[in-house]
Amino acid sequence: MADESSLLVLGIGGLGEITTGDDLAALIAGRAPLVDGDVVVVTQKVVSKAEGRAVGIDLSDPDAKRLLAESEAVRVLRRRGDMVITETRHGFVCANSGVDLSNVAEGWALLLPVDPDRSARRLRDGLRARTGLELAVVISDTFGRAWRQGVTDVAIGCAGIRAVVDLRGTTDAMGRELVATEICVVDEIASAADLVMGKARGVPVAIVRGVDPAFMGEGAVTKEVVRPYGEDLFR
Amino acid sequence: MADESSLLVLGIGGLGEITTGDDLAALIAGRAPLVDGDVVVVTQKVVSKAEGRAVGIDLSDPDAKRLLAESEAVRVLRRRGDMVITETRHGFVCANSGVDLSNVAEGWALLLPVDPDRSARRLRDGLRARTGLELAVVISDTFGRAWRQGVTDVAIGCAGIRAVVDLRGTTDAMGRELVATEICVVDEIASAADLVMGKARGVPVAIVRGVDPAFMGEGAVTKEVVRPYGEDLFR
Repeated sequence: MADESSLLVLGIGGLGEITTGDDLAALIAGRAPLVDGDVVVVTQKVVSKAEGRAVGIDLSDPDAKRLLAESEAVRVLRRRGDMVITETRHGFVCANSGVDLSNVAEGWALLLPVDPDRSARRLRDGLRARTGLELAVVISDTFGRAWRQGVTDVAIGCAGIRAVVDLRGTTDAMGRELVATEICVVDEIASAADLVMGKARGVPVAIVRGVDPAFMGEGAVTKEVVRPYGEDLFR
Repeated sequence: MADESSLLVLGIGGLGEITTGDDLAALIAGRAPLVDGDVVVVTQKVVSKAEGRAVGIDLSDPDAKRLLAESEAVRVLRRRGDMVITETRHGFVCANSGVDLSNVAEGWALLLPVDPDRSARRLRDGLRARTGLELAVVISDTFGRAWRQGVTDVAIGCAGIRAVVDLRGTTDAMGRELVATEICVVDEIASAADLVMGKARGVPVAIVRGVDPAFMGEGAVTKEVVRPYGEDLFR
């Protein structure tokens, strides 16, 4: 029916523990019942692990985590205890530059991918080569927000899908032009995926099926989502 | 399978044009194939219309929209042209206090519900009375964010589901305690629902099926999500 639509989100587990050099595309293609048009959401954690982004950290040093986070930042926006809010080299504003100590072996910390959009393209190309399907990829991470408690999953990289879809120029149900409707669809997709991923259940990948085909195309989170410094009306 | 899970998001259209006094619970119960445990997401727009939150606005006055937005605010955080970023009486930080001119008759503007958590509870109670089912309700609206371009849908009210789920105290896959994992699940649910709602397609309601039953319980967006003024590390 024209006025109804649906979306299916499938959690994919059983990839095993990911280590440096693992071929994520092969692992995902072997587990996920993919079809044309699927968006494959992969958590930053497994992408960073496969890309060898683990670094040693001496947790007996109470400043170690903060110093590592600051080394990954271009700007420290806030400090509280051993937590910092930083702007990363990618332009993301998040806690501790996205440096991750959970689900990592003791004495190791996981950094964000160097270029998460490139990671997404590589994974999309690998999945396409193995399956022959037209797919999109979103790499997700868990960020806090200004003004709202609780974290949500957002996109830090994407491929095969536009990050922000501009509905300006389309009309509302009254036939008038809509304004201010640039929707960050990759963040909404990352959030939808998180609802099946949980945090400790070994589900680092989700398929989101039924995303509007009009959203597909070349996209990049760092180009479309990151606000140029100084142009942020909310900041 | 224990390591796999899934979520279904169904868009529900065909409710017709909503006007003051309409019984949304009856309209939704008549259209939506609900089952126990479903989360019913309803856009602010139809809730505000049913609750008679439309007010007249003289758009020949270039300041009219800004003045109306400011009259709904406890604090104006930023001004740019006829756009203001405000903190509403509920504590939401958003553009123009959530005042909405799209999909409203010419000369009218739509205000946010007075108490969106109460609106959600009333709708949940109405749906329960009509269907006998245990359901949750989320009322969604479209907000901008700091540091990231593009809008996403978030929750402004909820009932029957906790807004923020605290996974602290649970352990990660390595058996260590997770920290900082208070997840704003109602915002993630609102975002998932927006992917089927679109902006102009007459789909103001979505069913989200397969949400973790552990999230169900009494929740309230204004209590759990709104950060107390002055306690916002990101602001």
